[in-house]
Amino acid sequence: MRKIELILKIIKERRSVRKYASKRPSKAQIKKILEAGRWAPSGLNNQPWRFKVVTDSLLKEELARLTVDFEIIISAPVLICVFLNKKDSYSHVKDLLAVGACIQNMLLSIQCQGLSGCWLGEILNKKEKVNAVLRLKKENELMAVIALGSSDEKICKSTRKPLKKLLI
Amino acid sequence: MRKIELILKIIKERRSVRKYASKRPSKAQIKKILEAGRWAPSGLNNQPWRFKVVTDSLLKEELARLTVDFEIIISAPVLICVFLNKKDSYSHVKDLLAVGACIQNMLLSIQCQGLSGCWLGEILNKKEKVNAVLRLKKENELMAVIALGSSDEKICKSTRKPLKKLLI
Repeated sequence: MRKIELILKIIKERRSVRKYASKRPSKAQIKKILEAGRWAPSGLNNQPWRFKVVTDSLLKEELARLTVDFEIIISAPVLICVFLNKKDSYSHVKDLLAVGACIQNMLLSIQCQGLSGCWLGEILNKKEKVNAVLRLKKENELMAVIALGSSDEKICKSTRKPLKKLLI
Repeated sequence: MRKIELILKIIKERRSVRKYASKRPSKAQIKKILEAGRWAPSGLNNQPWRFKVVTDSLLKEELARLTVDFEIIISAPVLICVFLNKKDSYSHVKDLLAVGACIQNMLLSIQCQGLSGCWLGEILNKKEKVNAVLRLKKENELMAVIALGSSDEKICKSTRKPLKKLLI
């Protein structure tokens, strides 16, 4: 398959998975995901992203209690918490765009390894408490939690607006 | 090559290109780039992104005058202007992250087609004027301009912080 067809397939087949098998992704697999995130583009190459990998059951449970996505977090054997480091920030809008690019790189690299993930955002409502649970400095602002594991659910369909409606 | 090794290679080899050959990417190539953007994930699947493709030389020149990236815009045969549609917005932070994911999908699909691009952000300082030049409604807020074409420059190296410094 040509590279462009392959990446379009990867992009389109990626789905949010909310229920995971108990098998934990290996350290090597997690490292490749972080590596993909690390190589995202950012304005002035400021790389404002930071990562906290959580696998400890008690910590996961404490985080799960902070969000409506409780079940997803409990089910996922790994969480990758993504932060914006304010000390590295140069433009709030551009930093957020860069972190979004970083997250997408990680989601695609999850998909490419036959693993599954879910980009969780509701927990941002309790971002200060997440920092307290993880004992992180205030300079790191929670942007997303990526639940990670092997899917234990059926593949769902997803839809997008037709391109015609997106062209202005 | 395994899928994960391939995507890591694509992610790491992508570079910002600032000088382009005159040959214009085909409509089919541009459509595949937009297709990649369209399938990005977003909170509540709200898909807040909008696209304006600019190829007209006079319009390009008007946009070029709004930024220090004048030369890049003049050189690029195609511009993909990316907007956040405020009517589709549900959370400013999550919308920006989603648009960042959308932009990264497009940059990767540019790379996969042997084309080159540059994510331009300085022009956001004149985002209202960009809307005026392109005659777009205020509900569309400029997020980025992607310069697009075939590279006419040597490949530069790039660097990233070591993973150790990103893990908190």
